[in-house]
Parts: sequence; C-alpha cells; structure tokens
Amino acid sequence: MKVDAAFPDKVVRSLEDAVERIGLGDGMTVSFHHHLREGDRVLLAVLEAVRKKGIRGLTLCASSLMRCHDGLIDFLRDGTVIRVDSSGLRGRLGQFVRQGGMKQPVILRSHGGRARAVADGERAIDIAFIAASASDIYGNANGVQGDNAFGSLGYGIWDSFQAKKTVIVTDHLSQSLLPYISISQSHTDCIAVVDSIGNRGLLKAGALAEKSDPLSTAIAKNVATLLLATGIARNGSSIQMGSGGVSLKVIRYLKEAFLERGWRFRHAVGGITGGLLNALEEGWIEALMDVQSFDPAAAVSILRNRNHHEIDVNTYANPDNPSNMVNDLDIAILSALEIDLDWNINVLTGSDGVLMGAIGGHPDVAEASKLTIVVAPLIRERIPIVVDRVRTVVTPGKDIDIFVCDWGIAVKEEREDIRRSLTEKGIRFHTMKELFEKATRLVGQVKKEETGGRPVAWVQDRRGRVLSEIYESETSGGEHR
Amino acid sequence: MKVDAAFPDKVVRSLEDAVERIGLGDGMTVSFHHHLREGDRVLLAVLEAVRKKGIRGLTLCASSLMRCHDGLIDFLRDGTVIRVDSSGLRGRLGQFVRQGGMKQPVILRSHGGRARAVADGERAIDIAFIAASASDIYGNANGVQGDNAFGSLGYGIWDSFQAKKTVIVTDHLSQSLLPYISISQSHTDCIAVVDSIGNRGLLKAGALAEKSDPLSTAIAKNVATLLLATGIARNGSSIQMGSGGVSLKVIRYLKEAFLERGWRFRHAVGGITGGLLNALEEGWIEALMDVQSFDPAAAVSILRNRNHHEIDVNTYANPDNPSNMVNDLDIAILSALEIDLDWNINVLTGSDGVLMGAIGGHPDVAEASKLTIVVAPLIRERIPIVVDRVRTVVTPGKDIDIFVCDWGIAVKEEREDIRRSLTEKGIRFHTMKELFEKATRLVGQVKKEETGGRPVAWVQDRRGRVLSEIYESETSGGEHR
Repeated sequence: MKVDAAFPDKVVRSLEDAVERIGLGDGMTVSFHHHLREGDRVLLAVLEAVRKKGIRGLTLCASSLMRCHDGLIDFLRDGTVIRVDSSGLRGRLGQFVRQGGMKQPVILRSHGGRARAVADGERAIDIAFIAASASDIYGNANGVQGDNAFGSLGYGIWDSFQAKKTVIVTDHLSQSLLPYISISQSHTDCIAVVDSIGNRGLLKAGALAEKSDPLSTAIAKNVATLLLATGIARNGSSIQMGSGGVSLKVIRYLKEAFLERGWRFRHAVGGITGGLLNALEEGWIEALMDVQSFDPAAAVSILRNRNHHEIDVNTYANPDNPSNMVNDLDIAILSALEIDLDWNINVLTGSDGVLMGAIGGHPDVAEASKLTIVVAPLIRERIPIVVDRVRTVVTPGKDIDIFVCDWGIAVKEEREDIRRSLTEKGIRFHTMKELFEKATRLVGQVKKEETGGRPVAWVQDRRGRVLSEIYESETSGGEHR
Repeated sequence: MKVDAAFPDKVVRSLEDAVERIGLGDGMTVSFHHHLREGDRVLLAVLEAVRKKGIRGLTLCASSLMRCHDGLIDFLRDGTVIRVDSSGLRGRLGQFVRQGGMKQPVILRSHGGRARAVADGERAIDIAFIAASASDIYGNANGVQGDNAFGSLGYGIWDSFQAKKTVIVTDHLSQSLLPYISISQSHTDCIAVVDSIGNRGLLKAGALAEKSDPLSTAIAKNVATLLLATGIARNGSSIQMGSGGVSLKVIRYLKEAFLERGWRFRHAVGGITGGLLNALEEGWIEALMDVQSFDPAAAVSILRNRNHHEIDVNTYANPDNPSNMVNDLDIAILSALEIDLDWNINVLTGSDGVLMGAIGGHPDVAEASKLTIVVAPLIRERIPIVVDRVRTVVTPGKDIDIFVCDWGIAVKEEREDIRRSLTEKGIRFHTMKELFEKATRLVGQVKKEETGGRPVAWVQDRRGRVLSEIYESETSGGEHR
C-alpha cells in the first residue's frame, strides 16, 4: 500500500518550470554538453529561462562552446553568468573573452581534465542540464532516438552521475520505457519538454568533413606509409583517429591495407566519425568506444550494433581513472594549429592569439597513448604551423612522438625505435628544426605581439595545474577560420 | 607518448592472488551477490582464499545466503567472518545462527534496505567480489554470456558503484570487449579467473517452479478473479509478480484475459521468471525491469530483447531513491509464511522460529506498490498460515491491502474502494478474523514457545530501524520445507 512514497512526476513543460522545480539559485554551477555541436539550442534557451527567473552569478561548466553559443555574450554582460569553463572558445564569444569582457578568466580544460574536475570537487556541478534526443516519463534518456538523435551521450552521462541534480531537456518524450537507456531514471530529477533541442543537421558542421585537397592527401599518405611500413599499425592495435579531415582520409588508406591483410583494429576510441562507423560495419575495426558522435548515423549504430559502445567521459579519459580507455591506446592521430621546436602543441589559438579552437581530448590522448602522431600542414593559409614557440601550450611536447606534414615526417629523438624502423624501410624523416627552417624559408615566421598583462583564460593541464595563460588584447584578431 | 599512465593489467589467475592484489585485510567488509542462487560457488571459494591468507574478522555483506552457503559455518567458527548481513538464512546455517553460533547478531535486510545501507554508510563495502559469467580483460563484465550465464547483475552493479574496490570473479574471460556491458571497466579493479563460478543449472532450484496442485490453483484463480473482475489489472498497469509457484500460475490466467482484450502491462518489475519472459515475447507485457533473473533464459532475452532491461538494485527499490521502480508499481503479488490479525507478514521464519526464508524485496514492494496482494494457503502442511501474531514481523501490516488464500479473499477495512468493487461484482470477501477462525477450526493454532533472551538476528526495516528480533533457541527446529 502506497503511503507516502511515490514515483515523482518529473515532467515539466517549460525550461522556466524546470529552473523553478529544480531549485536553481544565485551563484550555482550549471553544466551542459556539446553533443549537438553547432546544432545545440539548449544552452542558450536554459540561460534565457534563468534570466527570466532573475537568477544571477552562475558558473557555467560547459563540455565545450561552439559558434552557436555566441549569444552567451549577453548573459555574461548582464551578470547571469560570471564564470565559464569550457574546452574551447571561438567566434564572437572568443573575441569577447579575449578583449577582456569577463572579470574571471575562463578555465579551459581537456575532456579528461573536466571529467576529473567535476568529480574531485574542483568544479562541483549543482545542476546538470542535459539535452537528450529522447526521454521516457521516468527520466531514462538517450541520444539515439527522436528527430534530433545525435549519438553518444558520453559527457552527459558523467554529469548525471556527478551533479547534485539533473534536468533532462528533450523534444521527444516517450510514455513507455525507452529501449535503450544511457542516463538512468535514478539520476534524473526533472524532465523539461521543449519544442526542439536544436538541429542535428549541424552536428557535422565545422572541421569534420573529409578533405580531398592535395595538401591533406599528401599528409594522409605520409601517415599511412608511416603506420604500415614500420609495423606501428598491426592486427589487434587500438587507435584514436581524431575528427580532422586528414584523419578521415587516413582511414581510407588503412582500410585498403587492413582488408588486404585480413587485419583488424581491436577497437577505436574517442570521437566517432562516419569513417569509423563504416570500418565497424566492414569489420576491420572490431569495436567502437564512443564518447562523442561526429556523425548522426552513430545513433542508429549504437542502437543496432552491440560492438558500438557508448562510454562516459570518465571511462574515456579521466586521468584519475586508471581504467580509462586512452590508457589502452596504441596509436593516436591528433591535429594541431601550431607545433614548436620543443614539440609543444597549440590547438586553441591562432598565431595571433585569437581563440579559435578547442582542447578536446588532445592532452589526454597524447599523454596516454603509446604512440602519438600529430598531423598538420607545414603552412596553412600562408601562416607557418611549425614555429619556434607556440602561442598557447595545450599539450606539452613531451607527449608527442611524431609530426607528419605535407613535407614529410619528423620523429622525436627519444623514439630511437621508430627512427631505426624508418631507416630500415628507407623512409626519410626530419628533425623538427629542419621543418621549422623549411617553413621559415617559405613564408617567414609570424611576429608575435607582446603577451602579458591580465589573463583572460587559463589553460589547465589534465590534473588542474595552469599550463598556459591567454592574455587580454585590444585587437580582435579578425574572424578567420 | 605513454609516460607513466597505463591501462592496468587486472587479470589474476587465482582467488588468492586477487585477495592479495586488492589489499584485503583484517576486519574489512566484503560483499557478494546471490544471482546464481543455489548454484553459487564463488562466496565460499573466496572465503577459502581469505583463510589461506590468514585474514580474519571480516564482515560479510551478502545480498542473500542460500543452502549452498551452509559451508559458511566453518568460517564463522574459525573467526574468518565475524559479522553477517543477508536477506535470508536457511538450512544448517540458519540453525547455526539460531542456536547462538555467532556473537554478533546477523542483520537481515530487504534488497532495497541493503541498497540503502551500502550507500549511506551504515554498511560501507570495502571489497565487492562479484561473480560474472563473462568479463573482458578490461574489466567490463556481464551475467549474460558464458557457460554460467545467469541473467541480470542487478545486485552486483550497485555493489560495484559503492564498494571501495571491486573484484570480478569469472570463468569466462574475453580478450576483446564484451558486446554487452553491465559493470564498467571503470569500476573493476581486479579480475580473478576461476575454473567455475558455479552451476547455473541450480538457479531455478528452490521455490521457483510453477505449482499445479489444487491448493495453488485455487489461490491463483482467486487472484485472477480479484484482479480482473474489479478492474485492478487493466491495460497499462505495472506489476510485480513474485517468484512463488502461485504467481507463476497467476500469469497463465492473466495472459488469457489480456490477450483476449488486447491489453498490455506497461512493465513488470523485480525478479524475472520464465513466465514473464514468455509474456514479453507474447507482447502482453511491454517491458521487463530485471533486478534478478529466476530463469537462465533471461540471459539470452537481455542480450536480444531491447525491452528487457537490467536494472541495479538502487533503481529497483532503494527507499532513498525516489525514482526507484517499486515506487511506480500499481500491483504487487507477494507470498507469506505467516500473516496475522494485524496483517503483519512473516517470510523469514517458520511458526517454530526456524530460519527458513528470505526477506527479498517483500517490504520494499509492499510499502511502495499502490496495491499489495499477499497470497498463501490458509493452512500449509497442517500448520495455520493465518495466525494471531506472526513469529517475525518482516513487512508491517499497514503495507498490505489484500490477502488471497484457497478459502477466499480478505480485504483490509481501509480499502473501501476495493470492498465496494467486489461487492458490486458479487464477489465474496472476508475479514482476516474470519480466516483466522477458519484456520483455527481446521487445525488449531500453533503454541509458540516463549521468546526473549539473546537476539541472534535483527530484522531491519527499509530505513534501518530494527523491526523484529530473532532469539537464541536450543531447539534446532528440524529442517522442514
């Protein structure tokens, strides 16, 4: 006989009701994920509801911020939000921050670093607002059903574990139990039903398309040669491919070789692209560990293919979790905006200091993978990529082994094993200094403006130490790339 | 570049190695589940390894103990284990406890009460030893693959969340990622590979077979009439059926009516029997929420049927979790060893005080379900089931609405709604007093021996208060049922 206990009615019909129901108050920390990427409409809509309720002084802990979040500037200006954590900053929002629009420096973390910070108390989450493409009335939610199915809910799942309270925001409410449950009803306190969580058509917007220009093709060929000729890629290896256009091209070359030899990768980890979905279906990758889907087709794959696993970001890359999947990586292919003579990597700012990228899993993967390859053109739009000193250190040079550009391959001195192997196979390689000099001969080096002054953003390493600072600058730096 | 971080090698080849690797020490709390029921061989094998290592003074937090755990007596005698928590006690172990074999009273909790206790710190778990029918080398584990596939790992999952460290004990180690993951690698610290975790053939041993005797048939018919004629069971209801022979019989009657009317239960919750698996396939139950599988066929069903959900015991019945599934129950059918004039239920001891049952989810379900029906014969083996005062209160009478026996139906006075409905339909019902008098006329009442003296076991309610005590007794009470 039911006396007082009863399953709570969690469904509300507006974000304002959700904000009220969940007890959001001044100064709290709210979290959001970016699984919908440029198609996300939830973050700004929630802040709009927050403002209507007169709530102020929030800390915003976003897994990342895209150009679609430029509207955040309004909420920073009026004090609705006073602190921001993210993996990246871009567009007008990046300019606003760089020009000193915020009193508190933004904290930029890797995905693994954020997973750590929200768990160890450095950035405890009060309320997680989690966009879900489907939820049932009990609060079980996923990202694989509904009109805006976006795939893995890897960042959201971890937030639902860590936050004091969780609000599922969805445009697809089911009266019966969902057939696939990513976030359990036991972690859901409120379900806000909205007209639309966004537009999953924009999930692939940005730098996620395969590149077929001669530069990318040259780099991809160099990577494939390196991986296959030296025996680095072999039957049973694990790999993270990255989402850059070059990585997608590399998949094509690897496929040919793997199918021919009857080889299989034991799994691919991280952000899952259409190329990796194909590889799973074609059978030359055994399993996918998907923390974030870069292709809406991943949603169907997660539902139908038992070897396509959705993993939370703790299992992906939290440095405090020894069982995280990046610790099991044999090979990682990562991109760069800049690389320097000490092999430090910048994936966050242009050479002019403009905020234009995101840290993503870069430092997590680079540190943990047995072998880390960075790919980039030697020169991009007449700007040298190989520089004496990167503008912003995001991943320390100690974690990188190989750099592959259109002009060739550089191998770090410490990796004698790879140097020997390349020499045996008659594959030329360079020092970073040689590539630096090549770039300088071709386009000169960019003169960096003086840095210093008030920091507007801190880049944390995986464990929370400040690795580099981004300083206030009058110049907007334009809006390139 | 991997510097120091590396995915830990978790696999050990013996339980002794696991005990050493995991850092088990004197006085710690260890936990086990009983998903393999009478077929479990893990609990005693782990204690054997513990003893070989000379470790003493453990607290054993078992989700339940079966007859196959009689061998625990040796470890209680020699001080390897000094405290025991369980859902039930039976057989020689029950006798040993009742006769004063332990200094510390055993604590008996419901499944929901245990879920609460291990989470709120009342019984914090140091090391969870979790039998899994399959594990991969990363520590992802399930109960649905391998020779001893037993189905849901509902109790184990929650222990893996709550314990400081988790050891997966398995007889099926996969070199590649499992296609179905119940316990994540992120929660697994060590994987002990053993020859056998037990014998899943014994999973159905005990009181889990459908009964076709006239008594059970009469009770089941009374239940079906009650549910259908009054409109208590209707299209879209949720139900927990219990695992008793009568419940299995009830399923048959409900099936006929539901298929005929095109009705469907929205879901069934709790222990999942073969009858419920059939109902899911036949389509008149939409979904199963499975915390414990009572049929090995559940393993295949969980793997193949997206509407068969494995849920952890927190999501099943933790009273501290408002989103637990028993809070959403419309109808619950439960069994009893005794029921008294105040509607109190005993499912733990015989009328002579012999420990012979288990609390299971009884008090959880009874308190939370909108309607709770208890089924039992009026008289069992010449012993009256309806008594003036139950020997051991396990579920308070306030939580029960209806009692159905072979002689008829009793409805509590407070449930005017049901009384009215039965009257309208011309269905006779009784008071508990009338059934008590009937039983007394037929076989008299059992004279209860004096209780009092040293308590050997405490029965806790869901929230940790002592609800009743079981006292030391010289008499063994025999070994009936």
